[in-house]
Amino acid sequence: MSLIKDLISIVGEEYVLNGKGKDTDQDELAAYLTDWRGRYTGRAQAIVRPANTQEVADVVKLCARYEVPIVTQGGNTGMCGGATPSNKGDAVLLVTTRLNHILNVDTVNDTITVQAGCILQQVQEAAAKQDRLFPLSLGAEGSCTIGGNLATNAGGTQVLRYGNARDLALGLEVVTPEGEVLNGLRSLRKDNTGYDLRNLYIGSEGTLGIITAATLKLYPQPVAECTALVAFESLDDALYMLNYSRKGFASKLEGFELMSAYCLQIVNECFPEQHLPLSLDHPWYALIHMADSDSEEQARATFQRVLEEAFNNDIIQDAVLAESIQQSQDLWHLRESIPLAEAIVGKGIKNDISVPISRIAPFVDDTNTALQTWYPGVRHIIFGHLGDGNLHYNIGAPEGEEEGFLAKQEEAFKIVFDSVTDYDGSISAEHGIGQLKKDMLPDYKDEVEISVMRKIKRALDPQGLMNPGKVIDSVDFDY
Amino acid sequence: MSLIKDLISIVGEEYVLNGKGKDTDQDELAAYLTDWRGRYTGRAQAIVRPANTQEVADVVKLCARYEVPIVTQGGNTGMCGGATPSNKGDAVLLVTTRLNHILNVDTVNDTITVQAGCILQQVQEAAAKQDRLFPLSLGAEGSCTIGGNLATNAGGTQVLRYGNARDLALGLEVVTPEGEVLNGLRSLRKDNTGYDLRNLYIGSEGTLGIITAATLKLYPQPVAECTALVAFESLDDALYMLNYSRKGFASKLEGFELMSAYCLQIVNECFPEQHLPLSLDHPWYALIHMADSDSEEQARATFQRVLEEAFNNDIIQDAVLAESIQQSQDLWHLRESIPLAEAIVGKGIKNDISVPISRIAPFVDDTNTALQTWYPGVRHIIFGHLGDGNLHYNIGAPEGEEEGFLAKQEEAFKIVFDSVTDYDGSISAEHGIGQLKKDMLPDYKDEVEISVMRKIKRALDPQGLMNPGKVIDSVDFDY
Repeated sequence: MSLIKDLISIVGEEYVLNGKGKDTDQDELAAYLTDWRGRYTGRAQAIVRPANTQEVADVVKLCARYEVPIVTQGGNTGMCGGATPSNKGDAVLLVTTRLNHILNVDTVNDTITVQAGCILQQVQEAAAKQDRLFPLSLGAEGSCTIGGNLATNAGGTQVLRYGNARDLALGLEVVTPEGEVLNGLRSLRKDNTGYDLRNLYIGSEGTLGIITAATLKLYPQPVAECTALVAFESLDDALYMLNYSRKGFASKLEGFELMSAYCLQIVNECFPEQHLPLSLDHPWYALIHMADSDSEEQARATFQRVLEEAFNNDIIQDAVLAESIQQSQDLWHLRESIPLAEAIVGKGIKNDISVPISRIAPFVDDTNTALQTWYPGVRHIIFGHLGDGNLHYNIGAPEGEEEGFLAKQEEAFKIVFDSVTDYDGSISAEHGIGQLKKDMLPDYKDEVEISVMRKIKRALDPQGLMNPGKVIDSVDFDY
Repeated sequence: MSLIKDLISIVGEEYVLNGKGKDTDQDELAAYLTDWRGRYTGRAQAIVRPANTQEVADVVKLCARYEVPIVTQGGNTGMCGGATPSNKGDAVLLVTTRLNHILNVDTVNDTITVQAGCILQQVQEAAAKQDRLFPLSLGAEGSCTIGGNLATNAGGTQVLRYGNARDLALGLEVVTPEGEVLNGLRSLRKDNTGYDLRNLYIGSEGTLGIITAATLKLYPQPVAECTALVAFESLDDALYMLNYSRKGFASKLEGFELMSAYCLQIVNECFPEQHLPLSLDHPWYALIHMADSDSEEQARATFQRVLEEAFNNDIIQDAVLAESIQQSQDLWHLRESIPLAEAIVGKGIKNDISVPISRIAPFVDDTNTALQTWYPGVRHIIFGHLGDGNLHYNIGAPEGEEEGFLAKQEEAFKIVFDSVTDYDGSISAEHGIGQLKKDMLPDYKDEVEISVMRKIKRALDPQGLMNPGKVIDSVDFDY
């Protein structure tokens, strides 16, 4: 096959897997062609791992010439199947993990320039080595790539203070669908010279081009960090406390992670070795995290003062403050264990939604009711980044009724997404669209926005070869 | 004329000025058709002031039908002629100032939704009334509109902490070149449902559509603010102090405004009534501003500690700390008076550039030298937002040689912009491109970026009617 031969001539034999070759290691192939949650499996003509930007550009040019679709994959940790090719088997899967060099750390400009295939944790560590913080942080940080984080505009646990991946990027290098290299690797805080292409590529999930490198913002390492687990009598109180914390801590507030009592209960059941420092007598809990540049002593004084005021004003019912780094990590570990406990108690229907913070309480009430009407006894597994209005509003089958529950995902999505839309929210807060929500997007997004998105897709990728079947199609047959 | 008649039928006679009418008040006309700096004067068929989004959409549809270009204007305070039509006289000038309603303030979601024609100060005041801060702040805030701020991605004095206009916007309503209303007025902190159209419209200077409303982020009002004027022995020391402040104040650092001694000297000469609290024995000065959510006492302790450490470590040579709000305002008044003093001592050539912070010192050295070689005796008027790498690197004629100096602007631009490019900087950090820098842009921007920008312009505005002659043309004859 001449495509395979041509790919080999670009990247070398070692870095091309023939998707249809008889001798191809099927396990190796499957690792690339199945998403990590095991929900999507695709096929590909070839899996190619270029070593640098020029090789990426050459591969893209080759595919454009052969009119072969390209799916880009980083660490394969996406939540919406965005990095898994379709079943047609016509695509080339381009894996960026060999573009794994830290190109530059500038401690005066407080920036780091990295290749797209760098693992997020590698970027965090390179920053820490220079006494700087790269604040993007999420569950998959040990295996996701920074290119994937940018392509999906990843969120995580420190968005409240530092923003999404989008907010941390100053410049990008991108290979266009024609195989040209767009050199936008600027490290400037301000640049008003024309259209904001950086933010167009960020979050476009590989459908407009391939991010090959990025210049990212660094921050000073905090001097002191404080963590508390607190209990609320109601969701309204949790929201009140969020605003109270924003006022009291301002930009020092880094995390405000909401958890329903049920979430902590399943963590406790699945991982009894994890100490639960509060009783589960209250319906809602939150992990509050603050970081400051002042002394440990001063940070602690501020943290305690605000929490005590909240307690005295009956906003929080109970609280435990971490007394050490270990205790702080233990509290975070409870929060991070929720998805693992969820998987143990039975595969559920996952939602990643956001609504305006002021509307979260009625949204949860109404949507819980609608779901109970639809399927009496469903379990609500609600947690997430309250400070961003972003809930992982998950749904579990009633006990003993797991069989066939996942098949009802479409019905559940419709109920939740309709409600999200009623509350002016988003059907995907931080996970993106991928293939999971592509077909639903036009039902939940302003039609003028869909039309503008499609015009951009057509203008930049007229052959429709960049990650087809994800986010948006170049062609709308109803158009 | 039937265009005028049709415009009147949309917005009413009172709100249409006939650009060519015999009875049209010429002064009124001139106020719209000349930019505030008096550098550009254009002509228009009509000046139309719609009352709401629907009228904007109807005007745009009408113009599309007549194939008439549209120039959008807010407060007419732009720095690059972006809101002034060309001399052809074929355009309709659409003025947004009647879209001046605050639509909603949500103190739980911490957002404000405003029409595009609201004056920036009006937005700040509406936020303050609810004990919230809308942090965009710049010289023209009493007359510029928020729509213009977004269309040009305005910067200002608090970018270091809160970011540019772009970073403060959550959602936009936009009228497309077809006269459709794109309803993207979301108030969500996280939304990953497709391409980031918001950031594409922000900074596009009216060339892709017309921003008619926006939902913006609010912040808690700070509890305490601290200001100091400090003196440095060198620009390197100023940069060292910037990093020292970032480390010591982290996100509490709101401003780090650099000023050369010469800037303060001309302020002192032009406005002798303003008290200069430090001697001008040092070459560089900076205004450092910090704000905190803790007590006044705690904020002051932190501020003093960091400045004292810097003084003891010989990073700063002299410092005066504001002891009251009045003193803080007086220090800021010195900084804000620089452009006024500049205008008094003679019209100069203004630059609004940025380079990576780590390269500012050699950039200034090299560019000063190049300018002195070009024109011996030129005055360097250097000030700006050091924390953003953004300098107003202005050039004054040698004393007594003002005559004809402005005519040499192109030569000066070339020297400065070539140097900026050598140092990986931007030729427009916060003022935009407009008509002032449009023809130069392709010489200083990556050609693939220019090509992608043009594809987007063509795709979204195929008739080329939105603010033609600004930022980028739909057609490149060399293409």
